[in-house]
Amino acid sequence: MTTTSHPFYLDCDTGIDDALALAYLLAAPTADVVGIGSVSGNVSAAVGARNTLDLLQLAGHTHIPVALGAHHPLAGQFGGGAPWVHGDNGIGGVQLTTASAGLASESAAEMLVRLAHAYPGTLRVLAIGPLTNIAEALRLEPDLPALVDSVTIMGGAALAPGNISPVAEANIHNDPEAAALVLAAGWDVMLVPLDVTMASVLEEPHRQALLASSAPVPQALGEMLGYYFRFYEGIFGRPCSAMHDPLAAALAVGAVQAAVAPVVRAAVDTSDGPGRGQTVCDLRGLYAGYPPVKGARCRVVLALEEDFAPHLVETLLGFFEGTTAGLASAGSAA
Amino acid sequence: MTTTSHPFYLDCDTGIDDALALAYLLAAPTADVVGIGSVSGNVSAAVGARNTLDLLQLAGHTHIPVALGAHHPLAGQFGGGAPWVHGDNGIGGVQLTTASAGLASESAAEMLVRLAHAYPGTLRVLAIGPLTNIAEALRLEPDLPALVDSVTIMGGAALAPGNISPVAEANIHNDPEAAALVLAAGWDVMLVPLDVTMASVLEEPHRQALLASSAPVPQALGEMLGYYFRFYEGIFGRPCSAMHDPLAAALAVGAVQAAVAPVVRAAVDTSDGPGRGQTVCDLRGLYAGYPPVKGARCRVVLALEEDFAPHLVETLLGFFEGTTAGLASAGSAA
Repeated sequence: MTTTSHPFYLDCDTGIDDALALAYLLAAPTADVVGIGSVSGNVSAAVGARNTLDLLQLAGHTHIPVALGAHHPLAGQFGGGAPWVHGDNGIGGVQLTTASAGLASESAAEMLVRLAHAYPGTLRVLAIGPLTNIAEALRLEPDLPALVDSVTIMGGAALAPGNISPVAEANIHNDPEAAALVLAAGWDVMLVPLDVTMASVLEEPHRQALLASSAPVPQALGEMLGYYFRFYEGIFGRPCSAMHDPLAAALAVGAVQAAVAPVVRAAVDTSDGPGRGQTVCDLRGLYAGYPPVKGARCRVVLALEEDFAPHLVETLLGFFEGTTAGLASAGSAA
Repeated sequence: MTTTSHPFYLDCDTGIDDALALAYLLAAPTADVVGIGSVSGNVSAAVGARNTLDLLQLAGHTHIPVALGAHHPLAGQFGGGAPWVHGDNGIGGVQLTTASAGLASESAAEMLVRLAHAYPGTLRVLAIGPLTNIAEALRLEPDLPALVDSVTIMGGAALAPGNISPVAEANIHNDPEAAALVLAAGWDVMLVPLDVTMASVLEEPHRQALLASSAPVPQALGEMLGYYFRFYEGIFGRPCSAMHDPLAAALAVGAVQAAVAPVVRAAVDTSDGPGRGQTVCDLRGLYAGYPPVKGARCRVVLALEEDFAPHLVETLLGFFEGTTAGLASAGSAA
């Protein structure tokens, strides 16, 4: 950990784009991942934890503890994930060597609370799955908002269409009650919604660059993306994919800058109406260039300074080809 | 009525922009307004009817019948209108000569049903207020969808922010239950939401052109717009105004063309959650250029071919200066 790096707690439902976000976070020079919790979303919390451990071993980062998080959302039952997006095993059918490391003895929510106390005022929380664990941690430690440095959430759709309903995005829709608690807590939140993640598209040449890498982490990510691209071909009309979770990681790290990101009031629709799971962001200031809103604490990223995909690919190749080519090859031969 | 003109039933809550829409419709060469119903919205149904009658007299169109419509929405009570937007009298405090004509003996919903039978297959319905009367007419005549030619609604917010809540537009929010019935009825609907009406802005030079007219209708509209502009200065940061209702009129007439207007499934949020009154339009086809959606019947106008304001001003000046300068001067001196 250099003097300029920040401790990160990552909460994820690994997932293909979660895998990319994790790899990006490992590669980011200013991020120090000190703990990872899993949550049901793209896959079950257990499968997400399995994938996370295996990816960490492939990347040679077996020192990072992984905690199992909530299987069910706060209300209702886990719906079974999205195998049509991420594959039955959550990582597009790619078979990774099973990690030798096991799960932490604490839950994901307990880990987050512990890390918040261990890194008071400096821990960055990056949540790229449903917000069940974060809501649980707020219940365990009501002072959590004062303890952490920042909270970045991949989730929601502000002015863009939803992806799981006309107006709801999957992470939020999978646990609207948890998301409502997290957005209402006394901390500043950066929301990275579909508005920008659907505009951050990885194309086939990017995927080929990962596949052609000498390092196994980019190779594996390129293989997973083959599955992901096939799903997104039905959305975009060509093989490519949105980059939801990695973009949130890059914004949390500070490597990518928002061009439009008003701080507004935001709530989550927890009704049983057609808006269930919608992030209701009050963007009525649009026409006056988003004047400041007193008491607002949710920064909604609506546009980026530059295209994200090249930065993502360069960061992954630059880091893993430099550090893990030999290690990871050995790992995949094990 | 020329061979190329279409009979119109106008349902309105007059209202400054309703006044502009009414004047536009009278001026449009291909529209023949055969009846007008009022509904509570910007003002009460009674005040809206009063303003409509007075405007018709100012314009020399006293032959058009005006029917009083619903005072209360289908559920709940009329909330008292929006005097901060439209003024206490609904037309920015402008005093018009009280019309000598009285109200029709039928209700607005009854008028719509009668006209649909009188003009089978050709009546165009233009609704620029809450949809209470249209829902009532559907109850009175379940065959209404088969009888009318088209339904155009100023209402909703698709990808744009709402104006009465973060996600709801006022016309729909004022009677979500009615709007839900109207969008679910077996007819094709064109929805003209805030996405385009907030992008159709009348500026101060446009208002000055109306004020400088030799005809009293444009003059009166220019005066009303002074009040409207002051409200919208708080939205846009400069004196100007959105053109909600006149744009819907121009699209219904066919004088303005949509550049982006996918036909999608649309529902109205009638829950008591934060999305109440939202038009939930399924625009997830955005990323593939909106491929056709089987069974969808709601055309949502998202972008226009050209700027609307110049067309509006030219149409109003061209018509009223040509036809009503003498008449209206006499009227305003009465």
